[in-house]
Amino acid sequence: MNVEFINPFLASMLNVMSTMAQMELSPEKPKLKKDEVAMGDVSGLIGMVSDQAKGSLSITFEGPLAIATMKNMVGEGPDEINEEITDLVGEITNMVTGGAKRMLSEKGIEFDMATPMVVSGNNHTIHHKAEGPVVIIPLNSPHGKAFIEFSFDK
Amino acid sequence: MNVEFINPFLASMLNVMSTMAQMELSPEKPKLKKDEVAMGDVSGLIGMVSDQAKGSLSITFEGPLAIATMKNMVGEGPDEINEEITDLVGEITNMVTGGAKRMLSEKGIEFDMATPMVVSGNNHTIHHKAEGPVVIIPLNSPHGKAFIEFSFDK
Repeated sequence: MNVEFINPFLASMLNVMSTMAQMELSPEKPKLKKDEVAMGDVSGLIGMVSDQAKGSLSITFEGPLAIATMKNMVGEGPDEINEEITDLVGEITNMVTGGAKRMLSEKGIEFDMATPMVVSGNNHTIHHKAEGPVVIIPLNSPHGKAFIEFSFDK
Repeated sequence: MNVEFINPFLASMLNVMSTMAQMELSPEKPKLKKDEVAMGDVSGLIGMVSDQAKGSLSITFEGPLAIATMKNMVGEGPDEINEEITDLVGEITNMVTGGAKRMLSEKGIEFDMATPMVVSGNNHTIHHKAEGPVVIIPLNSPHGKAFIEFSFDK
């Protein structure tokens, strides 16, 4: 099931970052996470539940990319990760998941979203503990990297 | 609504830590998180969804407490946060939430759990972005602190 989710989450992420912040990200090829570790400074996380599957999604940003995204949106940004940035990352996580949810709904895959959480802390990593494989999509920009990661049971 | 959730989550956490790892934690008074920040080295996070409410829960451990918990359970533990520890923290998060779910179900409050995620990284903080207030319960032990935090929409 996880592979079907790649394009909706990726397309939604590129769309949200482009329309909200005129930030064009260049995705790398999606991978199954094994030894691969996405490390970043601020991450949005959200749980998803349906009758068909349960899972989790995270979007991890390197600090400079999160700050540049805020600057693109509102004309100025803080020098470090603060509550404005964690609010923004929570909102991006919600919008990306909501966009993917709409695309998946058209294919007959429905799920409910929990509320987002945001982690801040230099060089943290996220471990998805669903039973399925973890898909990781690295995204490049001149300001730093972002990573989409998700996993579903079954 | 958030206040009703305090006792089930707290009782479940104390029970899981005591029965799994003979680890007796001393809870402090629950607080509403405002300037209060729970900082730790490894956190389990989980999303919750129901018709009545959506929310998120996190359990944050200081590194030495997570490692001591592993040592109590299996007789030995690693020197630092590794995948064994993140697996354990994911499992604890699942069991605590499952225990609270059963207690809340008896009161007529039902929710579905997403799959757990675990964050590792020194001195990270978790920000719950549900609309309701964030409840934080600090827990003390000789090995370090843990924090339960949760928030629900509405």
